[in-house]
Amino acid sequence: MGLRKRLGDIIFETNTPVSRGFDVVLLWAILLSVLAVMLEGVASIQVRFGTALRVLEWSFTGLFTVEYLVRIYSARKRLRYVGSFFGIVDLLAVLPSYLSLFFIGSQYFIVIRALRMLRVFRVLKLVRFLGEASVLSRALRASREKIVVFLVAVLTIVVIVGSVMFLVEGEASGYTNIPVSVYWAIVTLATVGYGDIIPTTPLGRFLAAIVMILGYGVIAVPTGIVTTELARVSRENERRQHQHCHHCGLEEHDDDAVFCRRCGERLAPEAEPTA
Amino acid sequence: MGLRKRLGDIIFETNTPVSRGFDVVLLWAILLSVLAVMLEGVASIQVRFGTALRVLEWSFTGLFTVEYLVRIYSARKRLRYVGSFFGIVDLLAVLPSYLSLFFIGSQYFIVIRALRMLRVFRVLKLVRFLGEASVLSRALRASREKIVVFLVAVLTIVVIVGSVMFLVEGEASGYTNIPVSVYWAIVTLATVGYGDIIPTTPLGRFLAAIVMILGYGVIAVPTGIVTTELARVSRENERRQHQHCHHCGLEEHDDDAVFCRRCGERLAPEAEPTA
Amino acid sequence: MGLRKRLGDIIFETNTPVSRGFDVVLLWAILLSVLAVMLEGVASIQVRFGTALRVLEWSFTGLFTVEYLVRIYSARKRLRYVGSFFGIVDLLAVLPSYLSLFFIGSQYFIVIRALRMLRVFRVLKLVRFLGEASVLSRALRASREKIVVFLVAVLTIVVIVGSVMFLVEGEASGYTNIPVSVYWAIVTLATVGYGDIIPTTPLGRFLAAIVMILGYGVIAVPTGIVTTELARVSRENERRQHQHCHHCGLEEHDDDAVFCRRCGERLAPEAEPTA
Amino acid sequence: MGLRKRLGDIIFETNTPVSRGFDVVLLWAILLSVLAVMLEGVASIQVRFGTALRVLEWSFTGLFTVEYLVRIYSARKRLRYVGSFFGIVDLLAVLPSYLSLFFIGSQYFIVIRALRMLRVFRVLKLVRFLGEASVLSRALRASREKIVVFLVAVLTIVVIVGSVMFLVEGEASGYTNIPVSVYWAIVTLATVGYGDIIPTTPLGRFLAAIVMILGYGVIAVPTGIVTTELARVSRENERRQHQHCHHCGLEEHDDDAVFCRRCGERLAPEAEPTA
Repeated sequence: MGLRKRLGDIIFETNTPVSRGFDVVLLWAILLSVLAVMLEGVASIQVRFGTALRVLEWSFTGLFTVEYLVRIYSARKRLRYVGSFFGIVDLLAVLPSYLSLFFIGSQYFIVIRALRMLRVFRVLKLVRFLGEASVLSRALRASREKIVVFLVAVLTIVVIVGSVMFLVEGEASGYTNIPVSVYWAIVTLATVGYGDIIPTTPLGRFLAAIVMILGYGVIAVPTGIVTTELARVSRENERRQHQHCHHCGLEEHDDDAVFCRRCGERLAPEAEPTA
Repeated sequence: MGLRKRLGDIIFETNTPVSRGFDVVLLWAILLSVLAVMLEGVASIQVRFGTALRVLEWSFTGLFTVEYLVRIYSARKRLRYVGSFFGIVDLLAVLPSYLSLFFIGSQYFIVIRALRMLRVFRVLKLVRFLGEASVLSRALRASREKIVVFLVAVLTIVVIVGSVMFLVEGEASGYTNIPVSVYWAIVTLATVGYGDIIPTTPLGRFLAAIVMILGYGVIAVPTGIVTTELARVSRENERRQHQHCHHCGLEEHDDDAVFCRRCGERLAPEAEPTA
Repeated sequence: MGLRKRLGDIIFETNTPVSRGFDVVLLWAILLSVLAVMLEGVASIQVRFGTALRVLEWSFTGLFTVEYLVRIYSARKRLRYVGSFFGIVDLLAVLPSYLSLFFIGSQYFIVIRALRMLRVFRVLKLVRFLGEASVLSRALRASREKIVVFLVAVLTIVVIVGSVMFLVEGEASGYTNIPVSVYWAIVTLATVGYGDIIPTTPLGRFLAAIVMILGYGVIAVPTGIVTTELARVSRENERRQHQHCHHCGLEEHDDDAVFCRRCGERLAPEAEPTA
Repeated sequence: MGLRKRLGDIIFETNTPVSRGFDVVLLWAILLSVLAVMLEGVASIQVRFGTALRVLEWSFTGLFTVEYLVRIYSARKRLRYVGSFFGIVDLLAVLPSYLSLFFIGSQYFIVIRALRMLRVFRVLKLVRFLGEASVLSRALRASREKIVVFLVAVLTIVVIVGSVMFLVEGEASGYTNIPVSVYWAIVTLATVGYGDIIPTTPLGRFLAAIVMILGYGVIAVPTGIVTTELARVSRENERRQHQHCHHCGLEEHDDDAVFCRRCGERLAPEAEPTA
């Protein structure tokens, strides 16, 4: 087995202990590098640990550059990896560090490195959740219409409510124009409620109260959609695990069943779920 | 096929590629026109792009006026369209622009145009969700009692809580009168929490804490109702696969059905769902 | 039929058109009287409409007093009504008005009248929901343990978090003592977030962020409990409506089924659901 | 029966009336002692009731010390109790009081006593919920992957959003560095919304609005997970009625089971569930 094949197995596969170990180390490195970039931005920390953090950051940049090059080298289909979502993210994770040598300000973009944390999906073997034929993506596509309708309804509500509040409250309360009023409506409907723009007139407060109670119903819809879809997927997975009785054909048996509960026939051992 | 019939097919139907294209263009036009009206209200944008936005707005008004007239012309039942929900919305979408020529301030009502965004329900063929005999409306009517009881319970809670807080906190903390205290109770129960009116006495804070924990339970109720109804509809749709009865034509049968539930005819075996 | 019996039928029953009309009128009177008491507390309205509101309030007090006396007169078991929940509420609704003649400040308690809004439960025939043997109360008793555990867990979290934040942040940020810090923890965990007490140190903000993300999970629990219970009750009601096939014994049929879907036998007409 | 055995039964068991009484008294003592420690921290109360609270606190410390020693004495396996979760909590509940005699400030840690409130799990016989083989812990382990993915996704979102907002808003609006911006993103996504750091530029507000609407979906995920798991457990419990198999003794069978799923023995017909 060639070096390239062996490296590819470690880096791209997730089944062997070595490749899993590699993935876990990589995840921690990503987390630490993001933390280092974030801390470098804090004035008081920069003064005291500036040099250490700079060394740390360039070490991670070097590490990730090597990793990126090894990934290109060992990928089965090189161009496909470079053009894939994770390929682009891996490039974006190291590029800003080098650009910061030439352009001032570009070091801020190093936080794009945070995107690499999405690699956890790979480590946990959750890539299938992102795949074309997966359960979750099918579920999401099934509820796509509901989500679009929900978003359009929310947009319509906040535009109407924002405009009305602009007319009712006016500039004195901070509703300086319609976009700002719409921003307030979103802040209120999402129950964030910063408090920088607030209704002060009795009529404005009355309308705001109606928006909040309406928000109860609105916040319930996405929760309902997600819960229903999750429940459906969970129910499907549950049903699929059940064993088929070869005698009477009954399909739904508990995981630990050895005999069919309807006809008493012994269930086929090869049909046993892997749990 | 006459012009009127052909126009009607494009404008009112959603099945052909032409009519779907028309609907999508219309939706974007509505979105852009709402955006233009909103941006016109921002002082800094008005100064720089005022004329351009004004031209844009009148173009959209012209467009929507022509569309409204064509809709009346090509509708199968003209009066019914004019009096329908979308007919009235279409009229309200253009009226404020013309009124703004005579009355100052009426241009603000152009945002009513946002209501036209609800046309997305038509484009996505979701009109059935709004229809009289639809699943969603049946579900909503089934949970109507629960919603009324929920709203009355919330109203009773906020009135009682607001009055008690008014007595406990007094005017010093911003609880100037009972309506304001009730407004505070709604802001707190809905977990918006602007922070303009806040309890400052130990007793007031203790009561507020109880209201917040109570709010946990209260916010759970509409979510529970919506989720339960969505799950019920989803389960019904799942169960009712399309097993076509060759005798009476009934289409919706359960997965394990062997006989038609309406006429008792044996269902065709090739129509069996694959599960 | 005597006067007492006839009055009792109108006041206590909810089946006849007359009694339903009486209930609806009563609900509106309660709503209006609560509104009048609330508006009387607003200084600007008091100045302009003070006398009118005072007249209105005493009219309602008179009306409710007469209603209370008629209820006692016409109740089948008088003492039982006087001692019942609604009997006490009806008394408390009129008492403060009379007490306000002798004691200053007691008029504020007129808002107790808001409790009478709970009569909507009776009008909508929802008393069964409150009854001893009802589905909802059984469901609530079934999840009583879960709710107690949830409340104890929340209390433990907020006491621990509050104490830690008091040590971390200190009085400078408004965390003047442990009870105040616990109050802050409740405000944060319930996602209300007034903003009067806020963490300002990096460590405090870090801990607050953890509390907020934890709050995600905490807010999910009551929603989950309520949704699960509602779904269970809904499923039970659904199942109960299904018809029994006398031939093969299959119990679950759709509402509109005329023939058994398993054996094709005609379903018994007397088993037809009413809805 | 020796003293040790009898004490052990009262303290560690929850089946007899005496032991239940002991548990309830203990819970109230814990609650009161936590309350006393909290109130002692309030300046105005300290001045007036300082001595009383101090006496109360030391009484509780004495009581809990005696209880701890008796627990060690009467435990069947002493070392196991001392090293168990509740054993350590019981020690931590009394230690700070004694340490406060020597070290200033350590009395604050008395609030660790709040951890003892978790004993309610024992009193309500909910220990099984915490046990290794319990339903809830199995459910939690089943959704562990979902929770990790959810947390990583939230972390990635807040880091990216925080960094972008830092670049867009700058220090003028309070976004002094990336960690602070990430803190803001968490406060917003969790819909807490203190209002100490708020976007002021149009672009910043636009991005914040997107984050809030995104927050709708994010807050729905944990609710969906918890609800789905609770529903699954509830459904399983419902389905598995107590049909006792006379042959192998297996107790949990489905409602419609005719044969035992473990040994294939026909189940006794009199054991059939009524519903």
